[in-house]
Parts: sequence; C-alpha cells; structure tokens
Amino acid sequence: MIDPSYDDIKRDFITALRIIYREGLSDAFAHLSVRSRDGDEMMFMPRKSPALVESEDLFFVDFEKAVPQSSLHQAIYKARPDVKAVFHFHSPAVILLSVVGQTVRPMHNYGAVFYEGVPLYTVTGQVESPARAGEMAKLLGDAKALMLRGHGAVVVGQSIREVCMLGLFLEESARLQTEATKLGTPMFIEGNEAEKIAKRTFKPTSVERAWDHFAAKQANSG
Amino acid sequence: MIDPSYDDIKRDFITALRIIYREGLSDAFAHLSVRSRDGDEMMFMPRKSPALVESEDLFFVDFEKAVPQSSLHQAIYKARPDVKAVFHFHSPAVILLSVVGQTVRPMHNYGAVFYEGVPLYTVTGQVESPARAGEMAKLLGDAKALMLRGHGAVVVGQSIREVCMLGLFLEESARLQTEATKLGTPMFIEGNEAEKIAKRTFKPTSVERAWDHFAAKQANSG
Amino acid sequence: MIDPSYDDIKRDFITALRIIYREGLSDAFAHLSVRSRDGDEMMFMPRKSPALVESEDLFFVDFEKAVPQSSLHQAIYKARPDVKAVFHFHSPAVILLSVVGQTVRPMHNYGAVFYEGVPLYTVTGQVESPARAGEMAKLLGDAKALMLRGHGAVVVGQSIREVCMLGLFLEESARLQTEATKLGTPMFIEGNEAEKIAKRTFKPTSVERAWDHFAAKQANSG
Amino acid sequence: MIDPSYDDIKRDFITALRIIYREGLSDAFAHLSVRSRDGDEMMFMPRKSPALVESEDLFFVDFEKAVPQSSLHQAIYKARPDVKAVFHFHSPAVILLSVVGQTVRPMHNYGAVFYEGVPLYTVTGQVESPARAGEMAKLLGDAKALMLRGHGAVVVGQSIREVCMLGLFLEESARLQTEATKLGTPMFIEGNEAEKIAKRTFKPTSVERAWDHFAAKQANSG
Repeated sequence: MIDPSYDDIKRDFITALRIIYREGLSDAFAHLSVRSRDGDEMMFMPRKSPALVESEDLFFVDFEKAVPQSSLHQAIYKARPDVKAVFHFHSPAVILLSVVGQTVRPMHNYGAVFYEGVPLYTVTGQVESPARAGEMAKLLGDAKALMLRGHGAVVVGQSIREVCMLGLFLEESARLQTEATKLGTPMFIEGNEAEKIAKRTFKPTSVERAWDHFAAKQANSG
Repeated sequence: MIDPSYDDIKRDFITALRIIYREGLSDAFAHLSVRSRDGDEMMFMPRKSPALVESEDLFFVDFEKAVPQSSLHQAIYKARPDVKAVFHFHSPAVILLSVVGQTVRPMHNYGAVFYEGVPLYTVTGQVESPARAGEMAKLLGDAKALMLRGHGAVVVGQSIREVCMLGLFLEESARLQTEATKLGTPMFIEGNEAEKIAKRTFKPTSVERAWDHFAAKQANSG
Repeated sequence: MIDPSYDDIKRDFITALRIIYREGLSDAFAHLSVRSRDGDEMMFMPRKSPALVESEDLFFVDFEKAVPQSSLHQAIYKARPDVKAVFHFHSPAVILLSVVGQTVRPMHNYGAVFYEGVPLYTVTGQVESPARAGEMAKLLGDAKALMLRGHGAVVVGQSIREVCMLGLFLEESARLQTEATKLGTPMFIEGNEAEKIAKRTFKPTSVERAWDHFAAKQANSG
Repeated sequence: MIDPSYDDIKRDFITALRIIYREGLSDAFAHLSVRSRDGDEMMFMPRKSPALVESEDLFFVDFEKAVPQSSLHQAIYKARPDVKAVFHFHSPAVILLSVVGQTVRPMHNYGAVFYEGVPLYTVTGQVESPARAGEMAKLLGDAKALMLRGHGAVVVGQSIREVCMLGLFLEESARLQTEATKLGTPMFIEGNEAEKIAKRTFKPTSVERAWDHFAAKQANSG
C-alpha cells in the first residue's frame, strides 16, 4: 500500500485521469505516471480505463521492472532526470496530424508552450519493447512532447497537473493545426516570439487556474 | 421466452445496444444479433431503436424464417460458420467514406484490426431481399467488416462484445480517414505491419478493457 | 383556450419542439405549425425559444391575420392544401450548404426522401413580408423542403411527427453533403432510384420508430 | 462590497459567464466587464475560470488602476464612451479564422450584425501592456468586434446580455465562415443588405429571446 504522505498526489492522479477522460483525450487506453519523491520509482496505474482506475489501484514500480505499458514511462524517467510526470495518450487530433506527417507547431497562445518543437516518431505500432521505448525517449530529447505516428503522444512535465494541461494543450493545438491546414496557409508563430509567449502564458498560476477549471468541470459531470 | 441460461448474453446484448447508441453509432435504426449455442439460430431484436429495446423484447429466429431486418444477419451466419455475432449499423463517418467510394484502410493502431481489407458494396438502397443479403455476405468473404454505399456497415466477430468494439473502431477509423484525406496524403500502414499490430492490439484482454470502459460510461450516462 | 380534443396534438407539438432543440436544429429561433382539423387555421407558437414554449402558449390563427413569424407558414398552407404541418428552422449544415449555393441532393438512404429536389431561395434576409413568404411558397412547389440562403429551411408534411423527422433528415443530409464535397466527388443517388428508396425507407412505421427514439431521448435528457 | 442596487447586474454577469462556458466560448480564461452607472468605473472579475467566478468575487475598478487582465477593457471604455459592456474570449472558430488571416464577414442572418466589419489585430501574443491594449482599442474603432490573431476576440455592446449574444454570434459566424471556405466560394452578404438585415434581426427583443433561451439552457445543465 502506498504511504499516506502520497495522498495528495494520488488525489491529483485520479482527478487527472478523470479530466483526461472527460475532455476526450482517452477512451479505455492512456497511461499516467509520476516520479516518487526519492526519484528512483514512479507511481503507476494498472491496465484499466482512465475513467475507471481508483486510488487503491495505484502502485509504485522502479525503472527496470517490466509491468504492462510501463516501458515508455521508465525510459523517459531514466533519460530525463528533470521530468517528474509523464502522460501517454491517443487523442484524435494528435493521431490525425501524425498520419499526415505533421507535428504541432505554435500558431496560437496555448500552442506556444511547445516552442522547443515536437518530434515525430514515424515507426508504426505500439511501444512494444524497452528498446523501442528507449528510441522514443531519445527522440523526445529536451522537448515537452513527442508525437507517435498513428498512435498518439507523450508529454512530460514537473507535476501531474502540468502534464494534464500539456496534454489538453497539445490536443487543442493539433486540432487547430489540422483545421487551419485545411483552410489555407496558417500563420505560425516564429521561434523567439513563441518562447516569449510561452513564458507569459504557461506559468504555475495559469496551470493552477486551468486545473481548477477542469477539475471542477469533471466533478460536476457526475 | 428465452432460456435463463442466456441471461448473461441478453445482458451483453442490451448493454451493447446502449453503448452503440451512446457512442453515436445509431439513431433509431441498427440491428445486432448473436448465434445460439447450438449454432443454428440467432438471438435477434425487434424493429425498435437500440436505445429502447429491452431484454424481454429479444427472441430467437432460425436462418430461414423472414422477420423484419433479419436477412443480412441470416445470410452471414449461413456463409460464415466461424461468426458468432453480427452488428449492422448506419454511422456517420462510415456513410461519409462510402459515398466518396472509399473504405477503411489501416492508418492507426485501432484501424489495424481491419488489415484483411473492408469491401464496399456499391449498390444503393437497403438490404431489401434475401438475394441482396446473400450478395452482401458473399462480398464480405473472410473479412471482419463490409461497408454499404450510402447506407452503413456490418461487422462480424466472436461475441457481442467483440462486434460492439469492432463497430466503434470501424467508425473511428472511418472518421480518421475522412479527416486525413482532407488534410493531404495520409500514410497508410502496410499489410503485414497492420496484421502484426492488430495481433498485439486486438486481443481478448483489450476487448474486455474497452468493453468495461464503454459499459461503465453508458451506465453513468443515465 | 384550445379545445381539449387537441390535447394529443399539443403534446406532439411540444415534444417536437424539444426534439428540435435537443438535436441541435434550433437555438432560440424556429417555428412549428400544424393545420387545424377543419383546415382553415393553424396551431402556432409565440415568439419564444422552442426549448421554452409550453402547451398553454399555443394558439390558433387563420391564414390572413398577421402574427409574428406567421407569414411563411400561412403562405404554404394556402398554396398547398395537402400540407398538414410546417417546420421552419435555422440549422447549421443547412445554412452552410446554402451559402455555397448548394441544396440537398440524395446521397444516402435518409436523404432519398428528398428525391423531388430541394429548391434554394437565393434572396438574403428574413421572411420579412407576406409577399416574400408567397415567393417562397411558390418556389417550394410540390417539394417536401425548401432551403433559404444564409437563413435556414422549411419542411412540410402530413403531421408534426413527419415534419420533425424531415427536419432531422434534411440537416443530416446537408451535413453529409458538405462533408462529402470536401472529400472529393460524392456519388449521388439518381432520381428513380432515390424515389424507390424513399418509398421503402420513409414509411409511417419508420416515422413512428424514429419519433419514439427521439422522444425518449429528449425525455431522458431532463 | 458592491452596492445592492447592482444585484440584477451581478446576476446577469454570473449568468453570462455560465452561458459563455456552457456554449464552449471559454475554458478557464475569458473576461467580462460592465460599465458602472456613473460611467467611470467597470465591474470586473478576478483571474478565475468563468465557470467558477461567483457573485461575491466581482469588484469595481476605475480605468487607470492596473488589475490582472484589465487593460484591454479599460482602454476600450476610455476610447468608446458609448460602450457599456466588454467581453474578451478565446473561442475555437474565432482563433482558427484568425490564424489564416481572415475575420468574420456577413454570410448569414446572424453574422449580419457585424456589418461594420471586424478588424484583425495581427501582432501575436497576449494583451501584455496598456500600450498594446490602447492599440487594440484604436483598431476596434466604431465596430462591435475585434479579432486578435492566434488569441481570440473582444466584443462590445450596450449590456452584458448584448455582448454575451454578440460573442455567441461571432463564434458561430466564424465557424460558418471556416466551413464555407473549405467548401468552395462562399456567397457573402453585401454591405447595405447586411446592415438592413442586422437592423431587423438584432433588436432588443431578439437579444432578450436569445438570452432567455441560453440562460434556461445553462440553468438546466446543472
């Protein structure tokens, strides 16, 4: 059983899963994880729908032991000591953008947060093996998000709340980009400008405000 | 009245109808059936909306007796002894893809399950006669799904749960394909690769996990 | 006050308004009417959202007296003695199709019901005057539906239930046509074939089945 | 605390925020304001989701004191003595249209209200400074709406109810325009005709009718 000092984190974990489901980022398949305080384990969820996982289902696993769907998360924590939470999902606009060979590029204020670029892993299929997970983690590099062709995306951040918002922003940005591509020649926001906007827009207080909004929304949806 | 030993199957039948309705695969018109244990009959539903059919409305019918909307189901059970359940529906993206002369081709992990290909029946109108139903069953061949121009689709599988998920995956794949076609040149997944992904992705445990998700979702929607 | 012998019709009237609202065919503006039994009046609704009109708001008006938004309805009842109910609405796909100069042409089984063709009134603006209403009624001719550029549509039929379903089918057909146009070259269903399908598909029992479905759906939506 | 004589206005303020949220015009970020009766202050909301702001959170601020997100509102009240309410939001179709360099042009009856034209502010980023807010207010000129590239829009009017409806109509018009652009060559409504339609369509009684509809809808959504 998980130490009661993790109760707040477990509460955020479950709330994030419900938000993800409520906002259409997942059907029965998506995985969230968060690094333990001492840093060498991750709190993880069983092979179950994000809409159905409960607090008592959560468990810790280290970065070597294979449990179902864990390898991408483990590979990222090992490659990126700065990362505290990882969210892997299969949302519709992200998948759509990926199958025409595009990834998200900043076009509006929310998308600016991905100013470092979002690499695209073009090999089809699932994560399948620790070796492939390692390739994905390597391709992610220092970015906040990686897209996987015909499969989905992974986002990384400093907390469960942050990766939850990054997931929502990535999907929304992908949706905007697909729509704008159909309409004509989208005007992208150039590198330096995107970074400047991101630093104004994606601050801890904004993450908290967005979290409060989506948490209340999912709580009210019964 | 149906033998109580079929109670579990009747429960799945009604749950599947509610899922189908809840997920937008049907309005008032869609038909599900499941083969009886001894194999020479099918459990069927009356001419009523999938949102409204109740357990006591279900009945068995053999493969020769004509009851409303039964002929396509009967033709398939006769042509495909391996098939245990059949679901026929008229969902928006499937119809859309069909009227521009396309059928679903694998492009993402969920679509890979249709790696055998999805034939398109191009004659317009409804099923209309046992003769036409026979043509459709023949065109289906060994595939899991058949699309009907300007009309809808039929999917076949090993259980009610499986055809329910196949219906959801076919509609989602059709939606993705229509969107990707508008965006540019979609990258399809090639034959062998698609089959390999399907065998990893569409396993009984995945069907159960997706079923649990959608069943809970429709139960909570009141 | 309306004679109690009209209680059933009033109940259908209110249910139809709620369905129309629930299915996204109206926001605050849409008008339904039904011909009186003796034929020279229509039951009508006040200038109020279809989501909010109540049974006691309904009233009869003859075909000459001007009440707000009545003129198009009155002009049609005068020009078309066969028509028993009229529904005028402003739904998104119908408006969209109209502003690119198209009207609904049969492409799938539900759209086949409009096999006589759907004329397009190209003058912009609202109904505005009995004279303009007369032009619209004339353009409608013997058809079941008329589209109004940048404005909406009107459908006519034998009962409230029928025009409610015709409204839903017109909007769905318009949506399909806009989507198919974006995708490539849609395959339309040719005249004779469309009429044949319509006669199979749009029978009183189908209208009842669809009505039961949508009525139950709106009742459950609270 | 705000004087009880403002109770009605506070009630409209909160209802408008809930409508905005319910109709998809905002996620956690959007700001509404209304001018005080004596004209030299505005009632404003804290940095909180429109879905979560409560009546007791509202406060008055003059047009010089900087509070978070206030500068665009203040700049407009100073530049436009006729304006009584301002609504700034980030809705999907408005953002989409802006990133391909278009703004809303009348194409249907609801869009006609923007017959004066909708300028587009092309500098990316947020409002950021009173200087930039001043530029935006200047570009707005005498119009009812201004679009901000990759960011959102601002609408101005005579009351909270009016700006709430203008926000809904702007988003709906933007959605229609993006869809029509994808379909072919949209037929726009020419200047004089648009103004004529606007004067028939966008009257105080229509605003009230639409407000009653959306207010009831959000109240019922729990």
